[in-house]
Amino acid sequence: MQPEGHLQRLKSLLAEIADLSYAAALLGWDQRTYMPPGGTQNRGYQLATLAQIIHTRQVSSEMGNLLDDLEPFVSQLDPDSFETRLVKVTRRNYEKETRVTAEWVAEFAMVTTAAYDAWGKARAENNFHFFQPHLEHILDLRHRYVEFFAPYEHVYDPLLDIFEPGMKTSELTAIFSALRPQQVALLKKIADRPQVDDSFLHHIYDEQKQWDFGVEVITKIGFDWKRSRQDKTLHPFTTSFGLGDVRITTRLSPTDLASALFGTMHEAGHAMYNLGGESLLDRTPLFGGASHGVHESQSRMWENLIGRSYPFWQYFYPHLQEVFPSQLDNVSIDSFYKGINKVQSSLIRVEADEATYNLHIMLRMELEISLMEGNLAVNDLPEAWNTLFQEYLGITPPDNSNGVLQDVHWSRGLLGYFPSYALGNLIGAQLWELINNDIPDLQEQIRLGEFAPWLAWLREKVHCHGAKFEPQELIQRLTGSKIDPAPYMRYLEQKYSSIYGI
Amino acid sequence: MQPEGHLQRLKSLLAEIADLSYAAALLGWDQRTYMPPGGTQNRGYQLATLAQIIHTRQVSSEMGNLLDDLEPFVSQLDPDSFETRLVKVTRRNYEKETRVTAEWVAEFAMVTTAAYDAWGKARAENNFHFFQPHLEHILDLRHRYVEFFAPYEHVYDPLLDIFEPGMKTSELTAIFSALRPQQVALLKKIADRPQVDDSFLHHIYDEQKQWDFGVEVITKIGFDWKRSRQDKTLHPFTTSFGLGDVRITTRLSPTDLASALFGTMHEAGHAMYNLGGESLLDRTPLFGGASHGVHESQSRMWENLIGRSYPFWQYFYPHLQEVFPSQLDNVSIDSFYKGINKVQSSLIRVEADEATYNLHIMLRMELEISLMEGNLAVNDLPEAWNTLFQEYLGITPPDNSNGVLQDVHWSRGLLGYFPSYALGNLIGAQLWELINNDIPDLQEQIRLGEFAPWLAWLREKVHCHGAKFEPQELIQRLTGSKIDPAPYMRYLEQKYSSIYGI
Repeated sequence: MQPEGHLQRLKSLLAEIADLSYAAALLGWDQRTYMPPGGTQNRGYQLATLAQIIHTRQVSSEMGNLLDDLEPFVSQLDPDSFETRLVKVTRRNYEKETRVTAEWVAEFAMVTTAAYDAWGKARAENNFHFFQPHLEHILDLRHRYVEFFAPYEHVYDPLLDIFEPGMKTSELTAIFSALRPQQVALLKKIADRPQVDDSFLHHIYDEQKQWDFGVEVITKIGFDWKRSRQDKTLHPFTTSFGLGDVRITTRLSPTDLASALFGTMHEAGHAMYNLGGESLLDRTPLFGGASHGVHESQSRMWENLIGRSYPFWQYFYPHLQEVFPSQLDNVSIDSFYKGINKVQSSLIRVEADEATYNLHIMLRMELEISLMEGNLAVNDLPEAWNTLFQEYLGITPPDNSNGVLQDVHWSRGLLGYFPSYALGNLIGAQLWELINNDIPDLQEQIRLGEFAPWLAWLREKVHCHGAKFEPQELIQRLTGSKIDPAPYMRYLEQKYSSIYGI
Repeated sequence: MQPEGHLQRLKSLLAEIADLSYAAALLGWDQRTYMPPGGTQNRGYQLATLAQIIHTRQVSSEMGNLLDDLEPFVSQLDPDSFETRLVKVTRRNYEKETRVTAEWVAEFAMVTTAAYDAWGKARAENNFHFFQPHLEHILDLRHRYVEFFAPYEHVYDPLLDIFEPGMKTSELTAIFSALRPQQVALLKKIADRPQVDDSFLHHIYDEQKQWDFGVEVITKIGFDWKRSRQDKTLHPFTTSFGLGDVRITTRLSPTDLASALFGTMHEAGHAMYNLGGESLLDRTPLFGGASHGVHESQSRMWENLIGRSYPFWQYFYPHLQEVFPSQLDNVSIDSFYKGINKVQSSLIRVEADEATYNLHIMLRMELEISLMEGNLAVNDLPEAWNTLFQEYLGITPPDNSNGVLQDVHWSRGLLGYFPSYALGNLIGAQLWELINNDIPDLQEQIRLGEFAPWLAWLREKVHCHGAKFEPQELIQRLTGSKIDPAPYMRYLEQKYSSIYGI
């Protein structure tokens, strides 16, 4: 067969794997939005059967042979071409999938299913010991996982690589060691200033009106409803069934105006990233984003850099006041802007403001690295959590439910995931500086409700590439440097100097 | 391997096929309820990929070998046991799937996809010629299909067998030849009497209140919301993703009170059939119903035999009047009962009343048989339709859109499907006589809103068996005779003699 024939066959295999993955994603979406409780057990079977078929196809010898045949061919093409990148990313996935044994995958699925239940119980009853043996088992499994990838530079690298392809722990710790003292120092400066008032965010807000306003906002910023929809869920997420169908979910609270509004913008940011991919990426592993961190840069950009900016509310606030007159008529735009940007050390990551969020992440990352390095035992984890929490955020959790047990990630075996959230903030700020340079009147455009040039810029520079580039490679191409914390610190300092007068 | 091992392996293969089929069903449900328009193309790929994997597994040589190995084993077991029936039904499906060539399946999928589009255009523009070549192609494909099953008693048999396993065209024509003149005669008697008034059904009815009332009704009759849900759609349907998740859909019209209400009860009847299966049928081909006709007996029983009965409204009408006082305060229960049972020859099958419905079906069946026998050319179909319509229903369609082009079925290649609708009416009436015999105070219970004994009877006699028995076999076991039109005629004559005073 000629290379063109091999390529066609590879695309065909990958397209079918994508079809099955999209189908599995729909099963997951349904499970978290509409499925009646009676569907739980069979949904588990359905997802397991699909996962097994997907895995079998991903590690098939035909896949391996096609890659062997195609690599000499694509090495002669433009290294940035679709074909070259397709073969490269497929090879990366193939190597990962084939190194991990089927036994490990089965055990991991079994252990994390039980751990998830145990975590729920431990959190509800504020008893870490319910969760401890499960986390120990997960840690053991993760140690065995990284051994599949030996030799490695650092024991945390193979975990990080799941979420940030190509990135090393040494890069990560360099970034965060530089960032942490600056964030801690900023937080201390803010804490010395008079606090802003955000009590108006917690009046009673009609849920349907919140929903409608969120829809209005994301429609205005360019959300494509022909290829998307929004549904309600308990824990908001975005999911894709291909380029023509990328869905977001949101959660409404009658006493928290910020939750649904910024949550909706956050998920819309994720969705617009996927919806902005080039059409030839669809049904290939290049569809989606460069990494979890780059994805988070998009969601947090719309949520924070735009959604919590002053010009944005110069455009939207008059209408928000019209929708909620009794709650907001006496709240000036300046008070509103300050309220939605209130900084306060708090216990729960998902409720953290922009100035404290990364500290929640860094603490988790340090603990994960210590656990993986063998410098911390699971038994000592709660105490280590509380000590670091006091050091970084100046408060000590009153209990483990509001501390070490707050996140679902570890119970699902997701070690190495947290750094992506913080990287997203950094990458977002890097892109923000770049975009403000490329579009000098960007702030004025936002003030006038013009978001098309911004979205067009993101599409051209970031979205269209999908997963063609690794995260560091993408940021290097765009900004001329790798992921860098300086723009984020500049952004935070500028923002809070005006809000808190520091 | 011992028989038990073979049986275990067969169940495991079938369970995975069921998982994939349930997943495909969810993709279909989503497509018809929530999918944004941009998802269409990829959804087609996803369904095609799943269908291909399901087919490959259904016709695998391992499946054939397991059946060969197991048949001597189960022949020594109770012929009604789960194991015997599982092997029997799996063999039946296997024989069907393996006889039909992959080329035929691919061509059929391609042709019917194009035909569906052409039918939509032909119907919208009232031009049969747009659809004619597609239907000719479909007819050709259906002729090739039946040849896979040669020798057969009648050319229509292999088509009928898709929807009514084991049933023969000769049985069908015997039933309908006996029934047709009686239904036509009844219709003429009714037409000679003063017409009843149903104009109150077409006032403006708030859609949310219609929805809520429908939910209240099906909740009362025993619908299990823990294992089901209801959503809105254009063309109502019921679909299953296993025993714990069977969903219904409905459509609301602000000027047609009957449409959503009886539609909701109809779909709930389908759902309760599937939800009433024995738990060991789940994830096997025995899950579901005995046939389309038996399924339709359940839906039309709740919709018509109960939902359009006088005792039912003795219970529910006072509350319906409370919900819609301005529309119904001046409508007595007698007038309401007559209105929802108005008989009038009409053009559209899906809007037909109980007295005329079967005539719509018989005309389609006769045309299908003539087409398959080669006694009717597609070119002459519209004229043949109109001639029969005048003969059976006393009116001639003004155009093809309201005549031969009204149903989607033929464009999807579904020849042999229509008879099931009429069989459902007959089977329902047979069961109705049986239940009234077994539960002598049934009418009184309905008047008091007691539906549990009725549902329990259906579960024990019909639902629990799933697809274990073929339709004629099931009806024979229950009633002592095969499918018989006499109870249905008795039901109609009794009902309309009181309503129309005949």
